[in-house]
Amino acid sequence: MTDRNLPIGVFDSGVGGLTVAREIFRNLPDEKIIYFGDTARVPYGNKSPETVIRYARQITSFLVSEQVKAIVIACNTASAFALHTVQAELDIPVIGVIEPGARAAVQATRTGRIGITGTTGTVSSGLYDRLIGELMPSAKVFSKACPLFVSLVEEGMIDDPVTIMMIHRYLDDMLRNDSIDTLVLGCTHYPLIRKVIAREVGSSVTLVNPAYETAVSLKELLNSLDLAADGGPVDFSAHRFFASDGAENFKKFARDNLNFDIENVELKTLQ
Amino acid sequence: MTDRNLPIGVFDSGVGGLTVAREIFRNLPDEKIIYFGDTARVPYGNKSPETVIRYARQITSFLVSEQVKAIVIACNTASAFALHTVQAELDIPVIGVIEPGARAAVQATRTGRIGITGTTGTVSSGLYDRLIGELMPSAKVFSKACPLFVSLVEEGMIDDPVTIMMIHRYLDDMLRNDSIDTLVLGCTHYPLIRKVIAREVGSSVTLVNPAYETAVSLKELLNSLDLAADGGPVDFSAHRFFASDGAENFKKFARDNLNFDIENVELKTLQ
Repeated sequence: MTDRNLPIGVFDSGVGGLTVAREIFRNLPDEKIIYFGDTARVPYGNKSPETVIRYARQITSFLVSEQVKAIVIACNTASAFALHTVQAELDIPVIGVIEPGARAAVQATRTGRIGITGTTGTVSSGLYDRLIGELMPSAKVFSKACPLFVSLVEEGMIDDPVTIMMIHRYLDDMLRNDSIDTLVLGCTHYPLIRKVIAREVGSSVTLVNPAYETAVSLKELLNSLDLAADGGPVDFSAHRFFASDGAENFKKFARDNLNFDIENVELKTLQ
Repeated sequence: MTDRNLPIGVFDSGVGGLTVAREIFRNLPDEKIIYFGDTARVPYGNKSPETVIRYARQITSFLVSEQVKAIVIACNTASAFALHTVQAELDIPVIGVIEPGARAAVQATRTGRIGITGTTGTVSSGLYDRLIGELMPSAKVFSKACPLFVSLVEEGMIDDPVTIMMIHRYLDDMLRNDSIDTLVLGCTHYPLIRKVIAREVGSSVTLVNPAYETAVSLKELLNSLDLAADGGPVDFSAHRFFASDGAENFKKFARDNLNFDIENVELKTLQ
């Protein structure tokens, strides 16, 4: 029987998945996590399904070797391409961010007109469209890959004229012609420019951050499997952070963007 | 004795190094090349020296196994971090793009005030500054990392208001306050926005593309080692192209940006 106080593995192509980790910390304060950011091979958003699946397999093998009780794929592109493969191959529960994001979008919409943003990979997978269609057959889903958003966030260009220009270039058609009332931030970097997107798209559009809903799904999953930790709230120092490159950049990003003061990022090279 | 008609290995983090390949095709028409683009792990520009050196070793091992007679590191970041390591470890000649670029900058400048653009890695290495200082001790070198340029080029945003805005944000200080007369395009992606940069910085600044000078250096090197091919001009189909991910994206980029019609890109995964 799995020890309920084992950590939860959380991984992303890089630092963006820390926005998912933040929601886990907030909503599951008793759980400790092991985070892996694949900063040596970031980004995943414009790489092929085969390559992303290969990377996801390597990372989940590592997390399993660290004895996690469950895994969260905190990356939309990896969720889109690799969730079913790793679920089939591992004997611990694995969840991604797309199904929770689709559920949250369906709960949020009033008109059924839903916009999806994400990487080229996530958008081309069509997975949000399919899952939303299953949950709400009457929904109309409109998608737009926003590849420059990741670079803008990583450069710290948050409330910046260039970012604002790109928000309008990517989203104006969805807002004006498709009349969406709900917009999914389908990449873990995008919540970091959430405030600017919210201001630019206006208050008639509800923004959905799949990270929160993913934490809720994780909680339900752990409860249903009788795997929720029972040791009381853990200290931030109980979490472990691994990166495949650039521990200093990782710490700086976490500090500047998420207010996480991560003392130690362990370097872990995967082959 | 090495066969003079063996191919030359050329590698880059992705597609940008094709701008160097283009200069080799133009200036050394008798040589055939084997190009490797590490598209599964692109970009290198913000990764650590250790990781870039590891990748460069894997790629040069592969190129050596394909029996190349010489290697060109057609990536500024990899040249900055890995050239000396792979030169020391291999028994075939290896050249990078930074030394030729530094030489071209010194030849181009009239005032000795030289600007360097490049990735975060290339600029932080300080290698252009050091090499220019050795060639021209009176030179004043000013550097600016321009990390967004790679994403803009890869998204095809060439003569685009956002690209123009970023050109001014990155370069205006060098132009107005540092009074440079020469600007090195120290990343193999940047020649693809050369015309826009030239227009925006004005005709008083000479742009240096290290790719051309690298081809000239390669020619001199092959002649000095008695390794220049002697079979006459080769057909484009004699060149071979490998990518670690996304052969279709690779072909599309080559076609759209360089007018290269590459029939076959071979997928090669490195560990």
